Amino acid sequence: MKANIKQVAFEAGVSTATVSRVLSGTGYVSDEVKAKVQEAVAKLNYRPNAVARSLKQDKTHSLGIIVPDISNPFFMSIARGIEDTVREEGYQLLFCSSDEQPEKERELLMLLNEKRADAILIATSGGNEETIARIAASGVSVLLLDREAGSGLAAELDLIAEDNRHGAYLLTRKLLSSGHTRIGVINGNLNVSTGRDRYEGYLTALGEAGFAVDPAYVVNGKFTVQGGTEAAGYFLGLEARPTAVVSFNNQMTFGLLLELNRRGLRLPSDIMIASYGEVEAAMLLKQPELHYIKQLPYEMGVRAGEILLERLRHTGQETAPAQRMVFMPELSTL
Amino acid sequence: MKANIKQVAFEAGVSTATVSRVLSGTGYVSDEVKAKVQEAVAKLNYRPNAVARSLKQDKTHSLGIIVPDISNPFFMSIARGIEDTVREEGYQLLFCSSDEQPEKERELLMLLNEKRADAILIATSGGNEETIARIAASGVSVLLLDREAGSGLAAELDLIAEDNRHGAYLLTRKLLSSGHTRIGVINGNLNVSTGRDRYEGYLTALGEAGFAVDPAYVVNGKFTVQGGTEAAGYFLGLEARPTAVVSFNNQMTFGLLLELNRRGLRLPSDIMIASYGEVEAAMLLKQPELHYIKQLPYEMGVRAGEILLERLRHTGQETAPAQRMVFMPELSTL
Repeated sequence: MKANIKQVAFEAGVSTATVSRVLSGTGYVSDEVKAKVQEAVAKLNYRPNAVARSLKQDKTHSLGIIVPDISNPFFMSIARGIEDTVREEGYQLLFCSSDEQPEKERELLMLLNEKRADAILIATSGGNEETIARIAASGVSVLLLDREAGSGLAAELDLIAEDNRHGAYLLTRKLLSSGHTRIGVINGNLNVSTGRDRYEGYLTALGEAGFAVDPAYVVNGKFTVQGGTEAAGYFLGLEARPTAVVSFNNQMTFGLLLELNRRGLRLPSDIMIASYGEVEAAMLLKQPELHYIKQLPYEMGVRAGEILLERLRHTGQETAPAQRMVFMPELSTL
Repeated sequence: MKANIKQVAFEAGVSTATVSRVLSGTGYVSDEVKAKVQEAVAKLNYRPNAVARSLKQDKTHSLGIIVPDISNPFFMSIARGIEDTVREEGYQLLFCSSDEQPEKERELLMLLNEKRADAILIATSGGNEETIARIAASGVSVLLLDREAGSGLAAELDLIAEDNRHGAYLLTRKLLSSGHTRIGVINGNLNVSTGRDRYEGYLTALGEAGFAVDPAYVVNGKFTVQGGTEAAGYFLGLEARPTAVVSFNNQMTFGLLLELNRRGLRLPSDIMIASYGEVEAAMLLKQPELHYIKQLPYEMGVRAGEILLERLRHTGQETAPAQRMVFMPELSTL
């Protein structure tokens, strides 16, 4: 059996990152540790593959990831998928949270660039196309995560996302086909592609069914738990309150459920809920009937990691065209 | 009214971090931006306070934070408190997750050190006293977060933590005083101070009540949701199953609740639960009676940020003695 970097690390009693540093000649490693690694390499007859050989000497082996909400399990699952994929080759992840603030995001982009991250993965809060383009042009691999970017950037950068329009369309259709006509919608951040596309999917489904949008049933929940809670309070205060609600991310759905539960409402008899994204906590509900789009964040992260590793292996060589990977959403029921 | 850095930033149309960079002369800022900032400073008659003046020229304005589980809301609230406190002075946070793995933690410590973080805040997974001491000795401010470190390090470094022994003691006493004698305990990671101290608090309460520990009622849930779920399955499979369970962190409690709920058990009639830490999702339970230690992670983060800012202002000067701040836990009921 061919030895791999993990076995070498185990044999030498060091980490894979250290083995990687010794093999690529980057970073500080003591002579003693270097000798141990070389011994292990010799003993196991380890042959670093093309990856290791092509590692450029100026790699820092750190990847930066910027997400809008570091407390959202969706983004943390993506991060876990990325990390599990890139760790084997000695890369480490630095997380940053932009809190949906374009200015904070810009500062974080500049920080990661200053820190010489080999690549940056970003679920953008919008408005930073120019900064992203400049960083990408300087040779740093940039991958768009979950959210597209405007200004033609999307076509130049790798992208891992979902078909958000279709997912939102499926959710809305589910509510319509269950006989609901007064459907409340909790939008996320409309400055970003996921927020906009999901709302468009809702509009399409509504239009197909021959309904017009009633602005009184459209609120902005900002992709946050609190936004979902406030939306619930608003809807329940309406004279003709919606009989169903579609919520466009997991955090807002959680906030919505907290408030509905606090007021003693039951699903789906009192109100029917459709959610873009799973809410693990919903399993604690007594009768949780909940329709949702099952997202695959871990798988998205793995694919993002694979695409990035491929890029990083060929840094400085002729670059492959941008890859776009769009996951197709499916409707599930809890 | 005295102008502050935020007003200068607003006036100049840039971020506070950029103002800070211009004033301290660190990092790259274009001449055009520099001029804008200087104009705003003049116009508002802004006088940077002692903080800004004492800023050392080699600051990078980045702080590293290493936590064992980046998906745990407890650590994310601490991080939020830190960030809200240090941001005003232009510091940005880089998050890293050690996944309770000492080796991964060591690599991350070295990475943040290489990246020249001005300070490192760490909730250690244990075993890295030597690396931490070396980094601290090199002039990087290190603050221990939530968890103490061994080898006399604790006395030399700033620390923000809780009285975990007392909290666990209160929880166990609550179950005992409710008449329970068969009390299951779900331990966290016993290689770290919080895990060990909480278990000791349980032992003390049990001893005081005249009970001996039954090893069959002690399981290790590793501070994870899955660990809590597995512990529930184990306890419910015992012939003489516990009538009450104390769980030593929020994630394990969530896993425990998921499994109890899945099997249709009710709190507290079927089983009484006491939890070190809140579980927001528990509010979705029909009859959630749950005893818990209310933690104050946001406040812990704010204090950590304040202590660090104080250190960073006086880098290179005579250093103040290490600060230890221990929060006293209180028992609550949901």
